[in-house]
Amino acid sequence: MTKRIIIDTDTAGDDTIALLTALHNFKVEGVTITGGNVQFDQQVENALYTIQVAGKGGQVPVYKGYERPIFAIGEEQHVTVEDVHGKDGMGDSFFEKAIQRPESGHAVDFIIEKVKEFPGEISLCAIAPLTNIAMAIKKEPFIVQDIAHLYIMGGTNNALGNITPAAEYNFWVDPEAAKIVLHSGIPITMVGWEMCTRYSVMDDDDHEEIAALGTKGSEFFINVNRVVKKFNKEVHRLNGTTHPDTLLVAIAADPSIMTQSSHYYVDVETVGNLTRGYSLVDINHRLGKKPNVRVCEAVDRTAFKDMLLTVLREID
Amino acid sequence: MTKRIIIDTDTAGDDTIALLTALHNFKVEGVTITGGNVQFDQQVENALYTIQVAGKGGQVPVYKGYERPIFAIGEEQHVTVEDVHGKDGMGDSFFEKAIQRPESGHAVDFIIEKVKEFPGEISLCAIAPLTNIAMAIKKEPFIVQDIAHLYIMGGTNNALGNITPAAEYNFWVDPEAAKIVLHSGIPITMVGWEMCTRYSVMDDDDHEEIAALGTKGSEFFINVNRVVKKFNKEVHRLNGTTHPDTLLVAIAADPSIMTQSSHYYVDVETVGNLTRGYSLVDINHRLGKKPNVRVCEAVDRTAFKDMLLTVLREID
Amino acid sequence: MTKRIIIDTDTAGDDTIALLTALHNFKVEGVTITGGNVQFDQQVENALYTIQVAGKGGQVPVYKGYERPIFAIGEEQHVTVEDVHGKDGMGDSFFEKAIQRPESGHAVDFIIEKVKEFPGEISLCAIAPLTNIAMAIKKEPFIVQDIAHLYIMGGTNNALGNITPAAEYNFWVDPEAAKIVLHSGIPITMVGWEMCTRYSVMDDDDHEEIAALGTKGSEFFINVNRVVKKFNKEVHRLNGTTHPDTLLVAIAADPSIMTQSSHYYVDVETVGNLTRGYSLVDINHRLGKKPNVRVCEAVDRTAFKDMLLTVLREID
Amino acid sequence: MTKRIIIDTDTAGDDTIALLTALHNFKVEGVTITGGNVQFDQQVENALYTIQVAGKGGQVPVYKGYERPIFAIGEEQHVTVEDVHGKDGMGDSFFEKAIQRPESGHAVDFIIEKVKEFPGEISLCAIAPLTNIAMAIKKEPFIVQDIAHLYIMGGTNNALGNITPAAEYNFWVDPEAAKIVLHSGIPITMVGWEMCTRYSVMDDDDHEEIAALGTKGSEFFINVNRVVKKFNKEVHRLNGTTHPDTLLVAIAADPSIMTQSSHYYVDVETVGNLTRGYSLVDINHRLGKKPNVRVCEAVDRTAFKDMLLTVLREID
Repeated sequence: MTKRIIIDTDTAGDDTIALLTALHNFKVEGVTITGGNVQFDQQVENALYTIQVAGKGGQVPVYKGYERPIFAIGEEQHVTVEDVHGKDGMGDSFFEKAIQRPESGHAVDFIIEKVKEFPGEISLCAIAPLTNIAMAIKKEPFIVQDIAHLYIMGGTNNALGNITPAAEYNFWVDPEAAKIVLHSGIPITMVGWEMCTRYSVMDDDDHEEIAALGTKGSEFFINVNRVVKKFNKEVHRLNGTTHPDTLLVAIAADPSIMTQSSHYYVDVETVGNLTRGYSLVDINHRLGKKPNVRVCEAVDRTAFKDMLLTVLREID
Repeated sequence: MTKRIIIDTDTAGDDTIALLTALHNFKVEGVTITGGNVQFDQQVENALYTIQVAGKGGQVPVYKGYERPIFAIGEEQHVTVEDVHGKDGMGDSFFEKAIQRPESGHAVDFIIEKVKEFPGEISLCAIAPLTNIAMAIKKEPFIVQDIAHLYIMGGTNNALGNITPAAEYNFWVDPEAAKIVLHSGIPITMVGWEMCTRYSVMDDDDHEEIAALGTKGSEFFINVNRVVKKFNKEVHRLNGTTHPDTLLVAIAADPSIMTQSSHYYVDVETVGNLTRGYSLVDINHRLGKKPNVRVCEAVDRTAFKDMLLTVLREID
Repeated sequence: MTKRIIIDTDTAGDDTIALLTALHNFKVEGVTITGGNVQFDQQVENALYTIQVAGKGGQVPVYKGYERPIFAIGEEQHVTVEDVHGKDGMGDSFFEKAIQRPESGHAVDFIIEKVKEFPGEISLCAIAPLTNIAMAIKKEPFIVQDIAHLYIMGGTNNALGNITPAAEYNFWVDPEAAKIVLHSGIPITMVGWEMCTRYSVMDDDDHEEIAALGTKGSEFFINVNRVVKKFNKEVHRLNGTTHPDTLLVAIAADPSIMTQSSHYYVDVETVGNLTRGYSLVDINHRLGKKPNVRVCEAVDRTAFKDMLLTVLREID
Repeated sequence: MTKRIIIDTDTAGDDTIALLTALHNFKVEGVTITGGNVQFDQQVENALYTIQVAGKGGQVPVYKGYERPIFAIGEEQHVTVEDVHGKDGMGDSFFEKAIQRPESGHAVDFIIEKVKEFPGEISLCAIAPLTNIAMAIKKEPFIVQDIAHLYIMGGTNNALGNITPAAEYNFWVDPEAAKIVLHSGIPITMVGWEMCTRYSVMDDDDHEEIAALGTKGSEFFINVNRVVKKFNKEVHRLNGTTHPDTLLVAIAADPSIMTQSSHYYVDVETVGNLTRGYSLVDINHRLGKKPNVRVCEAVDRTAFKDMLLTVLREID
């Protein structure tokens, strides 16, 4: 039986490929949108369009959630990253609008309702700041025991961040949400940023291989990843595109892709001036606290790439 | 026409008298409960019982909201103050259960729905930590422009706190919520703790006068205030009972009770070790920021006491 | 026998009158200068000039100490307040240079040496940020037990600050130093800012009375206080000049001027964004910590004014 | 001509080998002791004993500096690490007392005097918390321009720490000192903890090779490193002894040992609860700030080991 999941996403760039991968491997109960990569309404459109690309237009509901982090104060806006993913978050592809429209309910209420409907069956894949997940937990704390598993793309294993030297973007945007979620008691698997730079990069040869598939899926992949390729070269000195969100979903779909992992105590810094959003992974057990997260430490890159190519090949 | 209000309360002690005062002066659309003074379910019962005392059992819905502050992490409990209000929050009166039961919806959704139903008409009286109000604003930011006014009992005007030297209880319990609310753009009137110690204290003579009313209302008042009287003497060196919440509702009902007020920039400390929950009121305009709150600076104590006695006299 | 003291001062405005008062009442072993009110070298000149006004040129050594707070980082300058005291810190009097020159040693070494020379005999009067005192304690921790008493003008008793709504200037400039000093174990008397606004203000009538003395001292007083008078009216809505430093020295010289005081636990906020430099005085014993400071709570204003006028009368 | 250096050390474990290496390669003007690894007076003895082992007893003065970090408050003690280096900081060797005694002046005054005496000639090697260096800079800011170079063993390049997951011990003990020093303008080379785990580990074979030297130096090395070997296995899962301080001194003596380095903006977290002492190295230039530190990124391990063995061979 296919596993039921909800994808929580700030749909831009690799979120879309992750979404294709999820639609291919899971019964996706719904997609919930949280404030993150680019303008909120653009993210909603990106999710709807991606569902359409997967040939599932109208079959998977999309819910709007929190547009800004919990602690965005007053008119304060949060930091979007159009420089990474393009103005539209889709590699400046400016796709047409999808036919499907978002639902009228709130993402958080949808998550709560679905977990109530299928207690113990729903897994969550969070490939965005954790605002929606945290707010769902806070609104109905009892859902914690009925969520099957929570997969998180976010943080680092005490390594170099991407948005600041200390922090990865998803945790940095809403560290308070991350803190609430990590300490919630939900079983969590976390895939940090340096797993992605180490194992998920698709270089020029990989892109050629993907382009050669000649499918709707492969064409979509090439378009969406145009801007991030340049960004990675300039900022992260990485030769290729990064696929953190897709890697997370791949691991959720096939745990054998994650070849090494350990349970560690993980926490997030909310206070520090330099370190807001820093994820602490107590690898050497220096703090003597109970592990709360299964942390990904190594990946079978070939298996991951195979899954990615399978998905892109079959979307046509 | 009677003004529509919603009372957000952590019902214990003076919250009950404030509720009686509100039921007497306003069209109370509903009562929402937020985590604060005593155990959450006890607070719900206290609100229901108070409505019954006022002779309005079944006529005013009670909604459960957030049981703990936004940033209570994991199993962490927030600090209740049974030492101030008694184990039941009712002066150790241990009243029977009211007939009316709480509604099934969430306090935050109720607030949002009511503001949508009567745009520009609903005022909020917050006599508890600001968790529910903050979460309503975060969930549906647009309600900010449709709330008529928000009255807040909380903080101090840069004066001695009650739960710590630096902080008043309501702001201290959930300073992040206070910060979100104060910067929301809603028109706000704030009545701080030292207004209450200065103008709301009912001493032994006042209590005798109230007891002499011989009504159901006066009896209830005497019972509920038994524990706080002792607490005030020991801790705050105050000779009498304090009525911060009732003072707030009284000012909302009759603005002339507030004889002096000014618009100041007000903010709340969320970070400091010693000062978490401290409310800064920029009385000397040192920070050069735009005023966001009308701050109560003096009260007509006689007018306040008159209103209180009128309410207690008529409840029979 | 006259008590031996060292005055630590950021000499500007009322520091000078305090210095005159000290020279009149104590055996002043030396004057140490710490970064504060105005440019450091100007402060040194102001101290030297004031000693000359007192007719003691060349008899009381002046030592330069720390020019900036402990945590001024790199080239970062601390905030001076020429708007309060005039460009020269002397009411824009631009006095000539004194004949006496500063000593070559460091203020901190001078403090340590003097305490070693007269163990148990030296009291310190700190009328500036506490940088020098803190650094002396850190360099030679043993002096703590040999300082007779430390009088501090700084902080507030949980009341409105002057440089920010939360903080008084001396504590705000170097809160880390204040924290080190308050927890050092030295016997401390603290006179906070609102003691000064309540009891030390000299209004127009007082100034006339002082001017009528017609002495060198009274003329100096009038000149030095010219700018602060305007500042107080505009910013603090105070009708007159404030004399926090003189009040402190007066209390050190004649303890009966302080008519009420209590021992409280006192601490300083170093972390908060809004509250850096806030002094917490645990008046209601909410924190259950051991008192470390005798806090001034009331002053005999007449006795204080008498002392001030005596000093100004006799300097001629 | 041999370079003049001062070694600032919390002498325990690898500090001693670093000191031997320095005495072999430099004109060591003096050794200054700062609070760190083990009890302060034990550290002083360890430095004196090590100088004696090197055959230079009485020729290199040892000065006591700050026993505790700048912000150790009141009686508060800082965290020593006898579990890493043994109760005596010497692998539980409990050596006899050296003949040489420490000087009477203060470490900070010694540093200032030496820099004044040889402007532009003195380099500092800091293999301890940066308390002494920071306090020297604060006391006489002008020395900044006259220090030839400052070599720092401390921090990490955004990697796993040793005392906490986020922080390396030297920066963690006194992050405020580290911040003052890093932003001082002194030319700095920093060797972080993961350089040491990657390039400085001496495993069982290396220890055998060292033991086989059969010199006084090699015997001393084996003794001193007994405890840390066990500690590294248990806590850091490292198979061997770590030599962070020796690596730093080796690089100072022969820059070619450092095969890769870059100038980055480096800062230290002082505020965060989880991240106090975290060193941020802005490798991807995300913060747009001016580089202030040359950061070691790779080491010629063979050259380093050669230098170490040369030193140990020649001490006999």
